[in-house]
Amino acid sequence: MRQEIAAAVKRIREDRDHGARQLALEALRALAHVAPSASGEELREWARALVLARPMMAAIENAVALAWERYEDAGDPATGVAQAIERLEAAPDGMAATARGVLPHDTLITLTYSSAVIEVLSRLRPRRVIVSESRPLYEGLRTARALAGHGISLTLITEAQMALFVREAEAVVVGADSVQPDGSFVNKVGTHLLALAARAERKPMYVLAETLKVAAPSQPKRFTVEEGKRREVTSERWLEVRNVYFEVIPARLVTAYVTEEGIRKPAEMERYASEAERRWRALMG
Amino acid sequence: MRQEIAAAVKRIREDRDHGARQLALEALRALAHVAPSASGEELREWARALVLARPMMAAIENAVALAWERYEDAGDPATGVAQAIERLEAAPDGMAATARGVLPHDTLITLTYSSAVIEVLSRLRPRRVIVSESRPLYEGLRTARALAGHGISLTLITEAQMALFVREAEAVVVGADSVQPDGSFVNKVGTHLLALAARAERKPMYVLAETLKVAAPSQPKRFTVEEGKRREVTSERWLEVRNVYFEVIPARLVTAYVTEEGIRKPAEMERYASEAERRWRALMG
Repeated sequence: MRQEIAAAVKRIREDRDHGARQLALEALRALAHVAPSASGEELREWARALVLARPMMAAIENAVALAWERYEDAGDPATGVAQAIERLEAAPDGMAATARGVLPHDTLITLTYSSAVIEVLSRLRPRRVIVSESRPLYEGLRTARALAGHGISLTLITEAQMALFVREAEAVVVGADSVQPDGSFVNKVGTHLLALAARAERKPMYVLAETLKVAAPSQPKRFTVEEGKRREVTSERWLEVRNVYFEVIPARLVTAYVTEEGIRKPAEMERYASEAERRWRALMG
Repeated sequence: MRQEIAAAVKRIREDRDHGARQLALEALRALAHVAPSASGEELREWARALVLARPMMAAIENAVALAWERYEDAGDPATGVAQAIERLEAAPDGMAATARGVLPHDTLITLTYSSAVIEVLSRLRPRRVIVSESRPLYEGLRTARALAGHGISLTLITEAQMALFVREAEAVVVGADSVQPDGSFVNKVGTHLLALAARAERKPMYVLAETLKVAAPSQPKRFTVEEGKRREVTSERWLEVRNVYFEVIPARLVTAYVTEEGIRKPAEMERYASEAERRWRALMG
């Protein structure tokens, strides 16, 4: 395998700082780097290596499979990859345009770090955003820092306070690591609790997700194996410590998905899953 | 005011380590210390000072009001206070006896620190207890330590993982800082999220609470003012930080109260509230 691809696979596999869209872009850029001199068979081999780098992130698989589909349509590897990069890079503006017509503008509540949330809210500039800190890695604080430069008032809370503070918000807004064909989604652990609290208080729950995040039914779903180190939670050694990073939030708790193509109900995710399935099969054979 | 009473009021007001029942016992013991040499009017004055020490803890108010009622019945201050202490001290055995017939014996989930939970579970010895850590003060770890000596397997999780791990438990078991006349209860923040998660997974939610924790309608409800220091959550200074300690969990999420008098539905709490109201009026006039 080309050295650039092997290095990208390793980086993507080990990365714990970036979201699914950013890692998908990294995979595509590695592919773009080697595409001009590649044969079709080489490109397919490298694409297959990249899609398996991080099996829980459907966006990586979908972006690479899209690049392969466009290559097959265009006949030119570089053009195929460039088109996939273009679609991924345009997604934040598209989601922000959709969000503008839907999200309340006063007070929102979110948790963890999501580049979709940062990119959409920094464009929309609501008056105030309440951020839950997201123990143990405190990605919520990172979100607060990223939004602070945009004239937004920020309030930091612990996860335990989410049921109290969802009352002060007009809506919950979160990103997604991937969206499942049945309209449920995978996100940082804690999101399910915030979704339940929103439902109990009759507040809408919006999930910002580009359509390339919708997983194909055949794609591997191994997100539950991602568990952090116990020492992130406590230094105590005498008891079992669990530090699961991701969970599935059921479709019934999602008010709507905010995509670059418009607002979508959870039941509409099945169509994007079918598209992803078709591309996935074309790449993986 | 007698020095012993003033000192007890100060200690109870400033204490952040002990639960409502322990502080109620501290109030009664201060009263017992001065009761033998007290006139009825002195006892009433001191009792009134003690009940106002911690307005969110109904158990303190109820225990002191009970001591006053028993004094009026018995005519002797020391006997009245002694009877109230006796009732409070017998409560853990009574709750444990009730719990034995109700709580599942395999896996339970809880959060924060509650002396009722410790006293009941250390007697019942379920196979495994999952404890949520309760940021920012980590009282959950204190609970795990207290239960570890009793042959119980312990699993520590972050609050964010409560929706995931409630699935591994047969039931939620928590204590209460106070129970409201309408069957709702006040407890450490985070409890509402665990209750919502339990409901979503159709797991029962049991609240361990002696009947002296049921608040009278006329008692002050100022628990929402208890907010911790911002530096308990973060050292960052540039954003608003909230650190509310308590919240109200609605009656509809409570499967049953486990009291020293037996298992009780939330709607049955009104009767105890009426008793508390009668005693409260007798003391406060």
